Amino acid sequence: MIYSVLVEVSLRPGIADPEGATIERALPALGFTGVSDVRAGKAFRFSIEAANEDEAVRHAQGLADRLLSNPVIEHSVVRVEDAR
Amino acid sequence: MIYSVLVEVSLRPGIADPEGATIERALPALGFTGVSDVRAGKAFRFSIEAANEDEAVRHAQGLADRLLSNPVIEHSVVRVEDAR
Repeated sequence: MIYSVLVEVSLRPGIADPEGATIERALPALGFTGVSDVRAGKAFRFSIEAANEDEAVRHAQGLADRLLSNPVIEHSVVRVEDAR
Repeated sequence: MIYSVLVEVSLRPGIADPEGATIERALPALGFTGVSDVRAGKAFRFSIEAANEDEAVRHAQGLADRLLSNPVIEHSVVRVEDAR
């Protein structure tokens, strides 16, 4: 089976996020109010071949931790969205 | 109500994605096989104050299109994940 995977990589709580802070400061000038806690991260999508969904999640999590994120400052969440 | 929103910004199909291609080329050397169609994008999380979920999605979509993405080459998907 081929599974479609979404990996969301975000900064851990407490790690400074200058990109998110800059976006938040720009919002009022563009007319957006009531927005807070802006955090910027990365999103990766890929297809992975695996025998079942558990294996797909395990391989994708390994890949996310080793290649797509820096586990010291970043946290990654794997979501399997589709299988065919 | 305050809604937690996730905005996923990805390159439109057909737009070259050198970051994703580089990741895909690096995978076999790290022992990951069976992975294809790697696409790199951005993920933003924020809290937005709105009267209801529809309004939260509408405001977040406007923000995503005007500030978080370049609609010419990027596509953004808004997901409301939590309300309090």
